[in-house]
Amino acid sequence: MINASIITIGDELLIGQVIDTNSAFIAQEMNKAGFAVTRRVAVGDDYEAIKTALNEEKKHSNIILITGGLGPTADDITKPLLCEYFGGKMVVNEEAYANVQNIFENIIKRPFTERNKKQGEVPDVCTVIQNKRGTAPGMIFFETIIEVEKIFVSMPGVPQEMKGMMTDDVIPMLQQKFTSAHIGHRTLLAAGVGESTLADLLINFESNMPSNMKLAYLPSYGMVRLRLTATADNAIENNKSLDENFSTLQILVKEYLVTNEDIPMEQVLGNLLKAKSKTLCTAESCTGGYIAHLLTTMAGSSAYFDGSVVSYSYKAKEDLLHVTKQTLETHGAVSEEVVKEMATGALQTIGSNYTIAVSGIMGPGGGMPDKPAGTVWVCVGNNKKLITHKFYFRFDRELNIRLTAINAMNMLRKFVLGDES
Amino acid sequence: MINASIITIGDELLIGQVIDTNSAFIAQEMNKAGFAVTRRVAVGDDYEAIKTALNEEKKHSNIILITGGLGPTADDITKPLLCEYFGGKMVVNEEAYANVQNIFENIIKRPFTERNKKQGEVPDVCTVIQNKRGTAPGMIFFETIIEVEKIFVSMPGVPQEMKGMMTDDVIPMLQQKFTSAHIGHRTLLAAGVGESTLADLLINFESNMPSNMKLAYLPSYGMVRLRLTATADNAIENNKSLDENFSTLQILVKEYLVTNEDIPMEQVLGNLLKAKSKTLCTAESCTGGYIAHLLTTMAGSSAYFDGSVVSYSYKAKEDLLHVTKQTLETHGAVSEEVVKEMATGALQTIGSNYTIAVSGIMGPGGGMPDKPAGTVWVCVGNNKKLITHKFYFRFDRELNIRLTAINAMNMLRKFVLGDES
Repeated sequence: MINASIITIGDELLIGQVIDTNSAFIAQEMNKAGFAVTRRVAVGDDYEAIKTALNEEKKHSNIILITGGLGPTADDITKPLLCEYFGGKMVVNEEAYANVQNIFENIIKRPFTERNKKQGEVPDVCTVIQNKRGTAPGMIFFETIIEVEKIFVSMPGVPQEMKGMMTDDVIPMLQQKFTSAHIGHRTLLAAGVGESTLADLLINFESNMPSNMKLAYLPSYGMVRLRLTATADNAIENNKSLDENFSTLQILVKEYLVTNEDIPMEQVLGNLLKAKSKTLCTAESCTGGYIAHLLTTMAGSSAYFDGSVVSYSYKAKEDLLHVTKQTLETHGAVSEEVVKEMATGALQTIGSNYTIAVSGIMGPGGGMPDKPAGTVWVCVGNNKKLITHKFYFRFDRELNIRLTAINAMNMLRKFVLGDES
Repeated sequence: MINASIITIGDELLIGQVIDTNSAFIAQEMNKAGFAVTRRVAVGDDYEAIKTALNEEKKHSNIILITGGLGPTADDITKPLLCEYFGGKMVVNEEAYANVQNIFENIIKRPFTERNKKQGEVPDVCTVIQNKRGTAPGMIFFETIIEVEKIFVSMPGVPQEMKGMMTDDVIPMLQQKFTSAHIGHRTLLAAGVGESTLADLLINFESNMPSNMKLAYLPSYGMVRLRLTATADNAIENNKSLDENFSTLQILVKEYLVTNEDIPMEQVLGNLLKAKSKTLCTAESCTGGYIAHLLTTMAGSSAYFDGSVVSYSYKAKEDLLHVTKQTLETHGAVSEEVVKEMATGALQTIGSNYTIAVSGIMGPGGGMPDKPAGTVWVCVGNNKKLITHKFYFRFDRELNIRLTAINAMNMLRKFVLGDES
């Protein structure tokens, strides 16, 4: 299998100023196209560091994809470095030059200075990738090492420009060059189960998988994603084998299965409600609106999400959700009784089909001997039926909030699935 | 200067399924502590690939920080690999074992299986870092290469657990190990201004800074954090010089200054309200509870945050916030009139001192010719006075939501500062 290294260049990556999203995009596209990214390296805007990375990665990989360091300022040294590295000299590329000139004179209308003119130059030993979204051209270099041809591709670090070049130019060029193998993935989401319990459940499945198949466990916030990956020359056979194994996998984890798509819990719940033409509201105390936030990160969520009451204070619980003072005083805000009244109040005042109500202590303060920090009551249901569950999370505030939200949405998802109304 | 490499392990990083935020956090913390991260490498859950990375990075760096691959499943091979790599054998670590046992038996209440018991084992050649936030212990290994001691630290890939170990254990250990020079930081937060405008404003300041001082621009979500860093042998003199320059810096950016502490906007606003013994509620449409969520991520926020109405539907705006049907029909939900009625309604029903109300179109759908996606009306104020502002954000849904929240909180912050009541 043809493998690839990604080299990202920039000081900002090494001081943690910027999260490297370029690498994730490049890896995704390469993987979909049937190339294996086996290493990702980030180095600073430093001559020796970049050269060392080039020397090392060409030993590891057939394809070396480079982003960053192509700007016009003094700290952008990738272009002259590559020119020297491959023994070329800088020449004007007419098309690239015209593109830069057009951008400065006609689009951003700033002086077309000497510094900017240099953006139209490229090493005479490269194949140029014209930049349709910015000034810096991309470059392709070839080097044959012990009869194996290595391909180096240099792209700008601006995500928009890099993405365009990858999709329009680099992937098609690589696919033409290498008749690559087919790589397929199937991903499911499981909740209410730990990684190790799943692994025990799947021991036989894993040992019986075809040798070209891998199963990955990807845990996050109280859920585990399971991803099957298989590589084969024949795409049709590969997909068939993946589908068969994925069916078996889904049956094995049926009890915990949330979805057989690679989507988050809030989207699973949203899709379910949309399919049933039902609506939802939330009554949130300890999660402080986080469940509503997750639901509304999905475009089009207004089709099934009506709104939320974030009742942090006693007064808000009483005035907006009609929780009675007596219930609050008798049982305390973190109680089954209060969370049920919150749910009923939300259904009445907002008028949705379903609701999620939560009340708990997220910590670090606020815990009591009988209700330590991390204690959460959740109630889900509709006008006919409410179900409740008490959780105890023992993590930090942020994680307790996330776990409460995920588990509460999963409770409602199961409720809706079992609801015949 | 002592330098470091980061090795992140996981197939999910190489197929682009997960964006590597761990590296950014580690780089940030190392940088603040005075260590230079010079390389970041990501490799898959593959024996040879991990070993190659270890072999290469120990040539480049004094410190090798490793995350990932410490889970209990078959694809998590980092621990046995490190054990072999450093010539040890696996032994039970009493404290780690007790921690895993406690988590399974008393907290998540799942069977404490053989597989989970293995999480309490560590190579007998490492120093253990106990995991206060999860099951997998961290490990420190030492290797002397040509009289230079190399330090290898292995941490879990779960961000929460890794972050805790970095802050509580790894950074203090490294600082003790390398009696490094004093490194001081001063950070301020500016909003309502771009990075390049700030840079122009600070040209003279930067050129007059002492040579041991650096100014970093850290832009995020419509704000820019400015961080002064200085390194010197004498801590007292270093702090004095930092304080002097930081005072000057604050005066220069006065117009945009939000806080001279390294804290987020929601904490600045919370601290301000707490100091004035005032309370806040929000009425959120397009932000879907995100402002309430940000405010309640702060421990102790119940002292100043009463609650929120997330009025996604017209009905919720009418029933919970008493926005009139006439106003909605005449001006549309995204209008100055509606956002003012939302604010008034929230102040009345929740009874807080101050409120933030927002209504907008976050995209990608829902835009109209006169109100394109990204149009947002914000209203802040109290029972005596309301002020409004129309924003236009041109980014994706997620970024539009974040920018709305930050700008709305900044509007209220300024309002509260200028409020004499």
